[in-house]
Amino acid sequence: MIPIICIVGSANVGKTTVLEKLIPALAQRGYRVGTIKHDVHGFEMDRDGKDTWKHKRAGAETIAISSPSQVASIRSVDSELALEDVAGRFFWTEDIVLAEGYKRSHFPKVEVFRAAVEAAPLCTEPSDNLIATVTDDPVDLEVPRYGFQQTDQLAAFLEERYLKNRKQHSMQVRLDGKKLPLKGFVQEFMQGALLGMLGSLRGWQEPKEITIQIRRGDED
Amino acid sequence: MIPIICIVGSANVGKTTVLEKLIPALAQRGYRVGTIKHDVHGFEMDRDGKDTWKHKRAGAETIAISSPSQVASIRSVDSELALEDVAGRFFWTEDIVLAEGYKRSHFPKVEVFRAAVEAAPLCTEPSDNLIATVTDDPVDLEVPRYGFQQTDQLAAFLEERYLKNRKQHSMQVRLDGKKLPLKGFVQEFMQGALLGMLGSLRGWQEPKEITIQIRRGDED
Repeated sequence: MIPIICIVGSANVGKTTVLEKLIPALAQRGYRVGTIKHDVHGFEMDRDGKDTWKHKRAGAETIAISSPSQVASIRSVDSELALEDVAGRFFWTEDIVLAEGYKRSHFPKVEVFRAAVEAAPLCTEPSDNLIATVTDDPVDLEVPRYGFQQTDQLAAFLEERYLKNRKQHSMQVRLDGKKLPLKGFVQEFMQGALLGMLGSLRGWQEPKEITIQIRRGDED
Repeated sequence: MIPIICIVGSANVGKTTVLEKLIPALAQRGYRVGTIKHDVHGFEMDRDGKDTWKHKRAGAETIAISSPSQVASIRSVDSELALEDVAGRFFWTEDIVLAEGYKRSHFPKVEVFRAAVEAAPLCTEPSDNLIATVTDDPVDLEVPRYGFQQTDQLAAFLEERYLKNRKQHSMQVRLDGKKLPLKGFVQEFMQGALLGMLGSLRGWQEPKEITIQIRRGDED
């Protein structure tokens, strides 16, 4: 599984500004960065009158647009996708995903905190999985603390903890987009079987990521 | 593999208008429709100043935004993705994908043709894989011909040919997003092995689509 780090904090505390510095700091260290923005209200990505917008309005559940430099997609969902499903589905060659928001997820969190904006930090429980803060306040939360000018040190911390020495393979199985929970030994067994089968095929190179997709017909 | 049909034709001949009628005609028949727009010039999906736009400008290779009703992504690519890679990657519960453009692909094509707009149809070679036309011209291309008001008949034709009785499973393997060519018997063998392994696990239901993703670590 790709490492996912959530950047959390109150509204207007400066989460996006921290991300705007953290992304290039990680990229300079040679990592490919992806981001996920959590939008609780619903967003508008497309514009009235564009062809893709017309497709969607006509009833297309998912639309994609592809050019020589970018590919984009918009998908309707009945309920919000879990963070790991968004990460697993859309990020296939990135080394790390930084999520803006997702306070309630179980993923590691960096809290952005300004004493002038709020009385107390959001993440105070062990279950919050706080790993660091970016703050102008000398608050002690028993995790590394970085100032707003120390994003490069934060990048170094994330690199050390999540990006170096990733020896282990990891595997995810999704059924119609939803993750199937797999025990460790089942994962290892299936990974071994699959890499063994695929590695013997013509056209195999050493990829970072392998995706196998099966569409089932009406009968077995 | 999900069926992919390309809607082709000259600029301004009315491809989007045909799609705007064909999408609901297929949806009314109970199918989930996805669309792909081919954009040769590059498109702008995001807007200046939005958080996702700031992430991208800061160097994120892929950004996603997720809400309770929609999920969207924008990914930078070095070169244009093949149509089947776009379809395989972004469409996971749809029954059919309608692509606007992609004249040069090998997928089945419906040509939209108006005598007033151009002298002759684009698809005249057997390799064009033309399966139908939507036209106001009595041109004979040896394939079914539909008028601009006959989109429902076109939907019925596509249903009959590509959507009914899809007995066969199909499988695709991608290495870092690029398709690995697989011979028929290899596909069948791997599908059988995978469905056998997965079908015995707790949490299995009968999905339409199964995705297995492996991220390889630094060592075997």
